[in-house]
Amino acid sequence: MTAQKRGLFVVLEGGEGVGKTTNAAFMREYLENKGIEYSATREPGGTPLAEELREIILAPREESMAPMAELLLVFAARAQHIEHKILPVMEQGQWCLCDRFTDATFAYQGAGRDLGTSRVEALESFVQAELRPDCVIILDAPVEIGHQRARARAELDRMESEAMTFHQKVRDAYLARAAQAPDRYEVIDAALPLVEVQVNLAKVLDRLIDTWKNHE
Amino acid sequence: MTAQKRGLFVVLEGGEGVGKTTNAAFMREYLENKGIEYSATREPGGTPLAEELREIILAPREESMAPMAELLLVFAARAQHIEHKILPVMEQGQWCLCDRFTDATFAYQGAGRDLGTSRVEALESFVQAELRPDCVIILDAPVEIGHQRARARAELDRMESEAMTFHQKVRDAYLARAAQAPDRYEVIDAALPLVEVQVNLAKVLDRLIDTWKNHE
Ligand SMILES: Nc1ncnc2c1ncn2[C@@H]1O[C@H](COP(=O)(O)OP(=O)(O)O)[C@@H](O)[C@H]1O
Ligand SMILES: Nc1ncnc2c1ncn2[C@@H]1O[C@H](COP(=O)(O)OP(=O)(O)O)[C@@H](O)[C@H]1O
Ligand SMILES: [Mg+2]
Ligand SMILES: [Mg+2]
Repeated sequence: MTAQKRGLFVVLEGGEGVGKTTNAAFMREYLENKGIEYSATREPGGTPLAEELREIILAPREESMAPMAELLLVFAARAQHIEHKILPVMEQGQWCLCDRFTDATFAYQGAGRDLGTSRVEALESFVQAELRPDCVIILDAPVEIGHQRARARAELDRMESEAMTFHQKVRDAYLARAAQAPDRYEVIDAALPLVEVQVNLAKVLDRLIDTWKNHE
Repeated sequence: MTAQKRGLFVVLEGGEGVGKTTNAAFMREYLENKGIEYSATREPGGTPLAEELREIILAPREESMAPMAELLLVFAARAQHIEHKILPVMEQGQWCLCDRFTDATFAYQGAGRDLGTSRVEALESFVQAELRPDCVIILDAPVEIGHQRARARAELDRMESEAMTFHQKVRDAYLARAAQAPDRYEVIDAALPLVEVQVNLAKVLDRLIDTWKNHE
């Protein structure tokens, strides 16, 4: 018996309303058609306990949340998610498709909340050890466009209702991270009509599938 | 106007059922009689959000909790508690009397869950900066005694229902920490009858009050 080939870990990132959840559905369908086994999940969340933490992180509340508390809650949910979902999925040979992961923490808590990168990096290594996404797809759009879409969709949560300067820091941080490691990041223009975004996503997925199939 | 003299930060520690909550009530009364203004609180908890996290940390649940998730949740609650309660209290010149603090994290997550000390130390410095208790009072008793008392009191929570080997590691860790910094720790034999424990607590409080009043 040979060891199961490990599935890829593909993360969809970007600010509010850029289309992550919409396009995650498209990606699931695309992978299904290509016969790739996958499991789709999201952060914060992905297990019952981590989803409870998501509620606490995102629900608007009277008591303001200390930025450090927010950072640690995000990583607590992530520790649970990795152990109980992400690693088991990939070890079974399935791809893991995740709506947000640690780049969001660098963008929202590191940049948006001004906590900086060094504490986020320390927590990343405590919680993830060697685990990093194989590919991070950043859906990028001007913050006004994302905000407009998010508002049209539903009531704003605690992050969505932050000021535009916050969202601009988030966007800038995503783009800066992508620029530093172009091999692992794909930036897709999410201001384009949905069908064009999806054509571009399909190209990224085709390339990932190709590399994955021909590896080993 | 002179700056308000900062209150002392006094922490009550020890394993399950040693008498922390019972003796915290005694200490409040004692400080009141001595005319010391104080605010009493507990961990995990101490603010509405941190109390929600306490629930999540302690409630028995089907999904097992990753030790790292537990560690981060404890520090998330602590970050919130420090910013919204502990620091404001001490800055007003009140003493802060806390039922458990970071020694519990070294004992329960570091030793009990085998996470070790280095990650706990890193989080301690992220979350607390320079904040350390002025005095940590450890109520110490053999684990069987504490367990018996806890069982007689109420249904066991997720920590209380851990195995005796876990509680033994917790007790050993508390004693080891006290031995390393005898200036800041007081170990009180909590297997003694309550009245004797309280006589010993009163001696510790008298000494703290004395030092505090004569300082500056
Ligand atoms: N490229 C696009 N053009 C126009 N509307 C879009 C596009 N992508 C997503 N939307 C719409 O924007 C809203 C937010 O999309 P969603 O996928 O929920 O964003 P996210 O998960 O990134 O916050 C939804 O109503 C969605 O239909
Ligand atoms: N020294 C003591 N001798 C006998 N019983 C005690 C003593 N200290 C506490 N108890 C009892 O043990 C139980 C647990 O005490 P509690 O203060 O709730 O412990 P903790 O907060 O440390 O878990 C309570 O029922 C309390 O009345
Ligand atoms: Mg979404
Ligand atoms: Mg108690």
